[in-house]
Amino acid sequence: MNDNCQMDEMIKVLRKAPKVALFSHVSPDGDCIGSMLAIGLALEKLGKEVTFYNPDLIPNNLQFLPGSSRVSQKLPIPQPQILMFVDCTDLQRVNLSKTDLSAESTILNLDHHISNQLFGHVNWIDAQASAVGEIALTLIYQLGVAIDEDIATNLYTAIVTDSGCYQYSSTTAQTHRLTADLLDNGIDILNIHHHLFGQNPLAQLKLLQCALNSLEMYAEGQLALMTLSLEDFQKSRAQQELSEGLVNHARNVAGVEVAVLLKEVGPQEIKVGLRSNLWLNVNEIAAKFGGGGHKRAAGCTFRISMAEAKLNIITAIEEGLRNGRSY
Amino acid sequence: MNDNCQMDEMIKVLRKAPKVALFSHVSPDGDCIGSMLAIGLALEKLGKEVTFYNPDLIPNNLQFLPGSSRVSQKLPIPQPQILMFVDCTDLQRVNLSKTDLSAESTILNLDHHISNQLFGHVNWIDAQASAVGEIALTLIYQLGVAIDEDIATNLYTAIVTDSGCYQYSSTTAQTHRLTADLLDNGIDILNIHHHLFGQNPLAQLKLLQCALNSLEMYAEGQLALMTLSLEDFQKSRAQQELSEGLVNHARNVAGVEVAVLLKEVGPQEIKVGLRSNLWLNVNEIAAKFGGGGHKRAAGCTFRISMAEAKLNIITAIEEGLRNGRSY
Repeated sequence: MNDNCQMDEMIKVLRKAPKVALFSHVSPDGDCIGSMLAIGLALEKLGKEVTFYNPDLIPNNLQFLPGSSRVSQKLPIPQPQILMFVDCTDLQRVNLSKTDLSAESTILNLDHHISNQLFGHVNWIDAQASAVGEIALTLIYQLGVAIDEDIATNLYTAIVTDSGCYQYSSTTAQTHRLTADLLDNGIDILNIHHHLFGQNPLAQLKLLQCALNSLEMYAEGQLALMTLSLEDFQKSRAQQELSEGLVNHARNVAGVEVAVLLKEVGPQEIKVGLRSNLWLNVNEIAAKFGGGGHKRAAGCTFRISMAEAKLNIITAIEEGLRNGRSY
Repeated sequence: MNDNCQMDEMIKVLRKAPKVALFSHVSPDGDCIGSMLAIGLALEKLGKEVTFYNPDLIPNNLQFLPGSSRVSQKLPIPQPQILMFVDCTDLQRVNLSKTDLSAESTILNLDHHISNQLFGHVNWIDAQASAVGEIALTLIYQLGVAIDEDIATNLYTAIVTDSGCYQYSSTTAQTHRLTADLLDNGIDILNIHHHLFGQNPLAQLKLLQCALNSLEMYAEGQLALMTLSLEDFQKSRAQQELSEGLVNHARNVAGVEVAVLLKEVGPQEIKVGLRSNLWLNVNEIAAKFGGGGHKRAAGCTFRISMAEAKLNIITAIEEGLRNGRSY
């Protein structure tokens, strides 16, 4: 418990509040929406008036969440005294600035990002949590609200999406223990998974088809490379975002250390996504071309032709692989 | 606790035994190997002599498991008094019959299949367990052995594989609670997942490419159909088994109720895999052509050309979709 974990203070404020406005971030995901809805439904069980705000529309695969139809793209008028932000590192994540908020408001900030800007009057940040869903469940316990199926469905969605189905390194024993508590409430995990992961756009599968048709192996199978041209996006009728994650198909091939996806996002504009498995620091590779990221996932952008971009990235990676163990 | 859960008796027998031979089933998977190794390593911590048997070789993706190199394809000679079978419904699952086992032996039977044939002198069957790994952890607790990283890595693998990464309906609150206990032992889940799921043969990805290139949609997007010809298998250098699971790429498209994969496995021999999402009983469809399975996963074999097989299956499924809700 430190200065960034003002749990008791946040519980005290919420207990007293007759009305609470909840906020979640742009490009909403399962964690911010699921956590926000669970907290709101719990507060309503305590008799409070609740509103839900998100600057964007709820993605199709989250529209099954209990309460999701109540999320508004309009700020509440008038704003209640208590404004609670869920899963937001700062106000910009909600496309808001201080001046958008009533000067008399009390801002509650519930998050799990280590980079959180502590913009709240009361901040509860737990960077150990795989998802805000974990913190939200603790908060609901502290409020003394019994978990029902609707709350459990929202929190399960928050945790299962942000922990990558319990596969990301952020997953802890606590992640599984809290999930067990949610399963005690008789949630239908098959149905939840069908909604979350079984409703991919057809355009995404067509994009995968294009990517696989472009697959090339280099460096004796250690480097797998795929490309997507503007034409591929057009004929698949796919938006850029749908290429997210496709690189993992190449990354998960035996013997592959680095997988690369080059996307043509405009004329002479090539976005490169890099993923490594065990040792190559792709952050260093991306940095050579003005990009960056993490050791195992990074990216950069070239303003040259696809053929030139390919040559550049292959050369840099082959050199990296030859030099051996980065760490 | 019932007659099929002779937990106390099994613990008593194991405590007394100086030597134990462990057995697991043909076509070994993460659950039978992980559970067998975990139990064996625990028994060794109690000072017992242990041997591990499997009729087949350990698959590549399980060779990282601590102790896996000790699994032998030869029966122990002489056989010890205590023979323990892990994850086997009957002796045939180990390619053995009664006469292969010493007449004086005590057979222990640890399993989670409801169809278990209770072939042991002592049977501990828990059909609620998502994996034998869950039962094995309880057994190790009962033996009073402290869980170490090697045991935890084996048991985590058992559970994560047999529960489908916590996505199958067999997953319970207990599955997550026991997993939490394993994570307390500092296992490296990223490394485990990389070994288990990140080492797909390149041939499998090429087969997926062929399947996606054949994708066709029918019944206004409710039916997604893919085919794999003998030539596809040849040019991908893929064995038949590698097509396992590819149909799910089509099943997980928004709006799809049924996904079908037709595989040419010989001249005029077409194997059909059927998967449905929410309501269509594909077992009934498969039964029309002499096949069968479950409501949401079934299969059949045609001895006609690919074109004829396609026509037959499309016609039957379109009729099923038109007739509406099976259940």
